[in-house]
Amino acid sequence: MSRLSVFGLDGIGEIRPGDDLAGIIAAAAAASPDTQLVDGDVLVVTQKVVSKAEDRLVAVDPDDPLAHKPLVEQESVRVLRRRGELVISETAHGFVCANAGIDLSNVDRGYAALLPVDSDRSARRIRDGLRHRIGVDVAVIVSDTFGRPWRRGVTDVAIGCAGIAAVVDLRGTPDALGREMQVTEVAVVDEIAAAAELVMGKSSGVPAAVVRGVDPSWRRDGSVHDEIVRSPADDLFR
Amino acid sequence: MSRLSVFGLDGIGEIRPGDDLAGIIAAAAAASPDTQLVDGDVLVVTQKVVSKAEDRLVAVDPDDPLAHKPLVEQESVRVLRRRGELVISETAHGFVCANAGIDLSNVDRGYAALLPVDSDRSARRIRDGLRHRIGVDVAVIVSDTFGRPWRRGVTDVAIGCAGIAAVVDLRGTPDALGREMQVTEVAVVDEIAAAAELVMGKSSGVPAAVVRGVDPSWRRDGSVHDEIVRSPADDLFR
Repeated sequence: MSRLSVFGLDGIGEIRPGDDLAGIIAAAAAASPDTQLVDGDVLVVTQKVVSKAEDRLVAVDPDDPLAHKPLVEQESVRVLRRRGELVISETAHGFVCANAGIDLSNVDRGYAALLPVDSDRSARRIRDGLRHRIGVDVAVIVSDTFGRPWRRGVTDVAIGCAGIAAVVDLRGTPDALGREMQVTEVAVVDEIAAAAELVMGKSSGVPAAVVRGVDPSWRRDGSVHDEIVRSPADDLFR
Repeated sequence: MSRLSVFGLDGIGEIRPGDDLAGIIAAAAAASPDTQLVDGDVLVVTQKVVSKAEDRLVAVDPDDPLAHKPLVEQESVRVLRRRGELVISETAHGFVCANAGIDLSNVDRGYAALLPVDSDRSARRIRDGLRHRIGVDVAVIVSDTFGRPWRRGVTDVAIGCAGIAAVVDLRGTPDALGREMQVTEVAVVDEIAAAAELVMGKSSGVPAAVVRGVDPSWRRDGSVHDEIVRSPADDLFR
């Protein structure tokens, strides 16, 4: 029977531009015997701390709650919908989300945080940093919080990954009754990001979590950009 | 530090119309000391076995791989997109998904399985059944596998729930820096369904899993229909 364990990493604290995120995460994980990283773990890190460490912060008027709105326009390559102050747009990465992924929560007053330039690369950097520092082979997912059409409520999804397949293709795998399966390309990195969010909360200051026990066959060099972002030609909703 | 544990329930076997799903799940959980259900657990059950137990099976031509297509039209209240044989439509429940949630995988040859009539009620029945049989207070989520616009890969989401909030509203909860949060209504049942899928796989015959350790404050009588299904008026993509 397969069994997952999902736990947050406490003590990461406030992240500043230039901080060595891999080093800080390694120290936080090492601080408790219950949270030591081991080979095969999947580490999920929220976009906000990645953006801060990579200095994707932009100064905005601290007294204007809509000060980040010009940045939303700037970071959008195409606007799909507008309602009031809400913009659903496509970013240069190909993500379709609210406000181009930009908000003011959990960022110092007077700053907005843009998405990482290349969040697969961000994930690879953290993965490589952990391997160099503590010699563990850990997959990394950078997560962000997206809504979706037709359903209320946001969930965390992956915007970058390293050391793990983004999508696992189960097409052609016989189902439990031995027949050919229909389309079953599972976005496992989105499911892992969602699982991690359950132990993070939105305001509890836990920006990283570990998912332990995922299927070892999923370990390979995956990419959210290459595997999950849908090309417009392949998309019925663009 | 919060910690979740996620494990599948082995030995559930093939489900037939009229089967007592709560009883079968209770027996499967009790069969191993590692999988005993306890108060506060969240049990995730896939739509397919719920539909089978509730006899939502419809006989179709076993030699026609598209035999379920007339059912897709019948179960759709509105078609949003078509491409080849793929239909993205809205069901009477308000779910927007491929083929009205109908497919032939993991169903006996010659049958298609429709979605449950009311999957919140299905979840309540299983929850009540478990309470009566083994005296545990377990929340229940009925899960199904949906795609989403703009991203490749499917993930499991909740189509019904009982004993747990579908959406947890963190709006107004101060963020880690003590300021007012922006929109953060988290679809926790979708995240739990996604976590459960990671131990189920698509063809491994594990149609139920347990997520242990979720925030106790989420335990209340939730409803996917009331909390997650977006009304057309509230929807930018209908």
